[in-house]
Amino acid sequence: MKKIITISREFGSGGRSIGKAVAERLHYHYYDKELIEKIAEKSGLSKEYIEEKTESSKPESSFKYAFLGPNLFHYSEDYLWKQQKEVILELAETGNCVIMGRCADFLLKDREDCLHIYIYADLSFKIERIVNLYGETDEKPEKRLRDKDKKRAMNYKYYTERTWGMAKNYTISLNSGEIGIDKCVDIICDLVENM
Amino acid sequence: MKKIITISREFGSGGRSIGKAVAERLHYHYYDKELIEKIAEKSGLSKEYIEEKTESSKPESSFKYAFLGPNLFHYSEDYLWKQQKEVILELAETGNCVIMGRCADFLLKDREDCLHIYIYADLSFKIERIVNLYGETDEKPEKRLRDKDKKRAMNYKYYTERTWGMAKNYTISLNSGEIGIDKCVDIICDLVENM
Repeated sequence: MKKIITISREFGSGGRSIGKAVAERLHYHYYDKELIEKIAEKSGLSKEYIEEKTESSKPESSFKYAFLGPNLFHYSEDYLWKQQKEVILELAETGNCVIMGRCADFLLKDREDCLHIYIYADLSFKIERIVNLYGETDEKPEKRLRDKDKKRAMNYKYYTERTWGMAKNYTISLNSGEIGIDKCVDIICDLVENM
Repeated sequence: MKKIITISREFGSGGRSIGKAVAERLHYHYYDKELIEKIAEKSGLSKEYIEEKTESSKPESSFKYAFLGPNLFHYSEDYLWKQQKEVILELAETGNCVIMGRCADFLLKDREDCLHIYIYADLSFKIERIVNLYGETDEKPEKRLRDKDKKRAMNYKYYTERTWGMAKNYTISLNSGEIGIDKCVDIICDLVENM
């Protein structure tokens, strides 16, 4: 029985819905926003800053510091990465959890009790999904998808030196648009229980 | 019900065993060596030449010709690619088949009745497997694996302009070493029957 499930996903692929459903069915803890809170608590950095930097921002330079308030010193993105890493390694110790994004697949790659999942989909599926979920914006959905995933890929590359979306980084990769959200949940839960 | 299953795989990952087992269970036709025979028949090229060029050879140049016998004119690798493409498109029309390698995932990417699979595994699993299956050679197994997959990746890149091993090229990607050969077969057959 696998104790930890990491889910990396393309924006709009339904990865978050899959992660939540898997956690619910297996009675595992679901870490997404809560992860941000834990990193904030540990690091003293603001949730907004962490949210921006841990997933979707281009790390412009490891020497770029952010000044975050009168009681805080200068922090580099490398400091944040270190805190994020420690929080994820600690969570892994407690087990029975689903961890969304934040390079958890890389940070936990040497643990044998992990199942690493990658969820992606075709453009048309993702466009329909983000417009339904988040509504229309002035920016075209194609551009929103491209920008978000480009940043995720750059962030991943910067910290892990791996290419985002390569099958070999994961135990299993699923095209949620073709396979369907519910079927993806079934496959993942079955693997957790029977691998 | 998906009518065509394409399987791309790393050398030593057990992809061939998975393909054969899937074909057997679903009563689908299994095309691997037979594909070579069909391309040979259609093109007039030798089986050895095709085997060498369709999977594991670096296409040095599209202008490099091979002189193959007194009754044959000069053939370029692009001629072989064209023949291979036609054979695979014709086979797809007949349906209910498993096609191993040979860029079939790319050639059939626009057909909705296809399930595209990528099978890979960790180095230790692949080493053990090739030594068991093919025996020891003077060349270290790490090198045999690296050379074979490097050639497959270059061949794939040359003809498809895609990166080999990117999850998005497939419906599902499976780490056969972690998941197990039998479980991979179960997952694929279930998808074929229920997608």
